[in-house]
Amino acid sequence: MKLAIFPGDGIGPEVTAEAVRVLDALSLPQLTTWEGDVGGIAYKRHGHPLPKETIEMARAADAVLFGAVGDPDCDDLPREHRPEQAILGLRSELGLFANLRPAAGYPGLEDMSSLKPEIARGIDLLVVRELNGDVYFGDKGERTSEGGREGWDAMSYNEAEVRRIAHTGFRAAQKRRGRLTSVDKANVLETSRIWRETVVEVAKDYPDVALDHMYVDNAAMQMVRSPGQFDVILTGNLFGDILSDQASACVGSIGLLASASMGERQTEYGTFGLYEPIHGSAPDIAGQGKANPIAAILSLAMLLRHSLGREAEAGRIERAVAKVVASDIRGADLGGTSSTSQIGDAVLDAL
Amino acid sequence: MKLAIFPGDGIGPEVTAEAVRVLDALSLPQLTTWEGDVGGIAYKRHGHPLPKETIEMARAADAVLFGAVGDPDCDDLPREHRPEQAILGLRSELGLFANLRPAAGYPGLEDMSSLKPEIARGIDLLVVRELNGDVYFGDKGERTSEGGREGWDAMSYNEAEVRRIAHTGFRAAQKRRGRLTSVDKANVLETSRIWRETVVEVAKDYPDVALDHMYVDNAAMQMVRSPGQFDVILTGNLFGDILSDQASACVGSIGLLASASMGERQTEYGTFGLYEPIHGSAPDIAGQGKANPIAAILSLAMLLRHSLGREAEAGRIERAVAKVVASDIRGADLGGTSSTSQIGDAVLDAL
Ligand SMILES: CC(C)[C@H](C(=O)O)[C@@H](O)C(=O)O
Ligand SMILES: CC(C)[C@H](C(=O)O)[C@@H](O)C(=O)O
Repeated sequence: MKLAIFPGDGIGPEVTAEAVRVLDALSLPQLTTWEGDVGGIAYKRHGHPLPKETIEMARAADAVLFGAVGDPDCDDLPREHRPEQAILGLRSELGLFANLRPAAGYPGLEDMSSLKPEIARGIDLLVVRELNGDVYFGDKGERTSEGGREGWDAMSYNEAEVRRIAHTGFRAAQKRRGRLTSVDKANVLETSRIWRETVVEVAKDYPDVALDHMYVDNAAMQMVRSPGQFDVILTGNLFGDILSDQASACVGSIGLLASASMGERQTEYGTFGLYEPIHGSAPDIAGQGKANPIAAILSLAMLLRHSLGREAEAGRIERAVAKVVASDIRGADLGGTSSTSQIGDAVLDAL
Repeated sequence: MKLAIFPGDGIGPEVTAEAVRVLDALSLPQLTTWEGDVGGIAYKRHGHPLPKETIEMARAADAVLFGAVGDPDCDDLPREHRPEQAILGLRSELGLFANLRPAAGYPGLEDMSSLKPEIARGIDLLVVRELNGDVYFGDKGERTSEGGREGWDAMSYNEAEVRRIAHTGFRAAQKRRGRLTSVDKANVLETSRIWRETVVEVAKDYPDVALDHMYVDNAAMQMVRSPGQFDVILTGNLFGDILSDQASACVGSIGLLASASMGERQTEYGTFGLYEPIHGSAPDIAGQGKANPIAAILSLAMLLRHSLGREAEAGRIERAVAKVVASDIRGADLGGTSSTSQIGDAVLDAL
């Protein structure tokens, strides 16, 4: 089993280090790991946020454990040299088209949400976001218009792109509560019309899943009013970016949420994927031992399950985390005073 | 003073009727009103959701009072005949480029929000949404690709488009708490890069306004975590669609929120504009006297203030509404049993 570890910027290295301690504690046989640079640190060391060697490391691995990228030092760089290009580049280079972002409250942590506890408690949803298309990866540029300089970006989806992510969404719904909400803006966008028609087509293969459609503005409204209504939300790259962050905020404990980005490549043990906390690099608290490593540790659990076929170990980690979360060990993000390594220690103890 | 009234579909006619009763009660001198068809009703009567006569009526008026459009009977029509085209068409035909959507809690109604009362109570923001550009009005269509049928939409903003809406946003911030948050996705979109650069440029004319920038995914998160941080949110057509609906949901009482869409044309009394409740046509409760007419009545107040220069009357209506909202007269949307006309009566009494 080969694992590439990309700690990245800000709190990325700190939280990834705790996940690696957990990994070491599992003493998996025949595991090789290697570390690569991504983001601002990669730009500083190699002149590019996503060096060729990093991509090659990822290609050679069964899975990637990713920390976070983002560095205020790089704010004034042209976009192609900004840290965010590392994650966008990995998604496209590695064909990671499916982003899975579960958002569910931890019992006992409902108070961390801005939503009323009885509403926060009901959240248990999965956002399935397409990650290789949409306005993210279309042609883009600047041109001259009658109104001066004009920025433009091409948005599109074709049937093949929608079909493969729709299958991911429907399969996920089958394993959950059997409901899928496809989110688009089909009353305005042609991209969304093809999206919707293709999703309806794919739905025929999944008679056991209840499908409905929602416009993105209404979805953003419903996510506040009654987020408990959602099981799987299937959506494109841009709307998924917005809605998945909104969903995380509704849960309230962002330091606890992990995500998976999966491709089509099958490894010996599962599906190749990249796993990362949904929180960012949080440069304001970097290096102070204040970051909560739970999301990174849960990213490792997802990695073990989906890419390395290690369901038992994934479950062990998740149970250990649940114990710690239910205890009085809490990071600053949850109103506590425990440090990054104290939380890591607690998970190791519980393991 | 000339006023065009477009009641539209679903609950549109019911709530507009109550606003018209309030207007009549004011006995404004030299007021001419006329009524036009928009949406599903216009399609049924004239074969088009936005008939030429309707556009002409709007052009001849100082302001438009708009109800709502949307009709399930029209769900299977091709997009150009769907009710939504009425509002999109009016926005572009009339050059209504600035959508102003205030979202603020009513004291005493904090409980209606899904957010904790202490967080809901702090919401007092204005979304200034650009309404004539972005991916809404760019070229769009379907083409054949390697991946089968492909839907595409062109997104763009040029400096002139951003400049005029930015001025609207900064002027609004000057009259409020002096803070403006510009929301974009400049880490991914060229459209957003031009947006941001132009907003920074325009900001130089408003040294008294504090400007900051936020990515749209973060804004959707912050809108849940701490919506009280926002004063004016300035954003494009697509992000504004999503964030303004999210903001309304955070406030909780959608039946109370009004909006204005303004152009550049100056009338004898103010600026030409179209005013509408932010709620939709709600076909499920249409014709049952269950709709809350307050948003329509407050739309009339905005109309009187901005397009007819009638600040005194606008204030009178708003004070009357505040009294009714603070009383035990409540519509079904706020957990009460008062009917559309009972609420209208109460506002008239308070007036
Ligand atoms: C960093 C940024 C480009 C990225 C995105 O927009 O996809 C991030 O917001 C995310 O959701 O992973
Ligand atoms: C009906 C629809 C086209 C419209 C929009 O997306 O602008 C609506 O959602 C709105 O916000 O007024």
